[in-house]
Amino acid sequence: MVELQTSQLDSIFHALGDATRRRMLRELAGGERTVGQLAEPFEISLAAASKHIKALENAGLIRREVRGRTHVCRLDPGPLASAHEWLSFYERFWTDRLDVLERLLREEDARKTPPPRGDDHD
Amino acid sequence: MVELQTSQLDSIFHALGDATRRRMLRELAGGERTVGQLAEPFEISLAAASKHIKALENAGLIRREVRGRTHVCRLDPGPLASAHEWLSFYERFWTDRLDVLERLLREEDARKTPPPRGDDHD
Repeated sequence: MVELQTSQLDSIFHALGDATRRRMLRELAGGERTVGQLAEPFEISLAAASKHIKALENAGLIRREVRGRTHVCRLDPGPLASAHEWLSFYERFWTDRLDVLERLLREEDARKTPPPRGDDHD
Repeated sequence: MVELQTSQLDSIFHALGDATRRRMLRELAGGERTVGQLAEPFEISLAAASKHIKALENAGLIRREVRGRTHVCRLDPGPLASAHEWLSFYERFWTDRLDVLERLLREEDARKTPPPRGDDHD
């Protein structure tokens, strides 16, 4: 992992560590939204919403564009891809665990099934 | 997304939002480590290391077992899988963006390549 990426990952994961911000991202998955539209579903002040939007912006997760008097936000998926990639390193651990579970269940089944009867050869 | 998972995801992403904690997880990918071993590579106090370990433990990312006088930590990949799954929802966005980039590059190539010469039919 490049040193440059460290502080970037810090801000990405930090931004994702809040349910309101995650819901804002999910909203932006549906398309562009104004700051007002993003704030609307939450019973929080516009100032509090702006703070959340700023955290998402700092992490590079959203881009804000000023159009006349409105600020329009859209999703930038790049940092989500970086976080996803970071986590992918650990994929073998949860896959391994599922493999072990499957093996144990198969062994359990084998124990429950009576052994096949001997043939009539002897 | 189930409501129950919300606070869990908060603590998982929060725990991941720190480079020291991410390096501790990477270390645990190599196998069990004592608290002392986990703290060693960082120039921080054992108290500070313990705080980081506590954050990882609260997020369910590591399990701590007391063996005699030592505390042994090991990775629990389950919460990493949850975070990975949450991010996977956005996979189509970065894949789409790569598709667009690829199309643009192909168009650029096509413009640079001279058009095929006409056959000698006419």
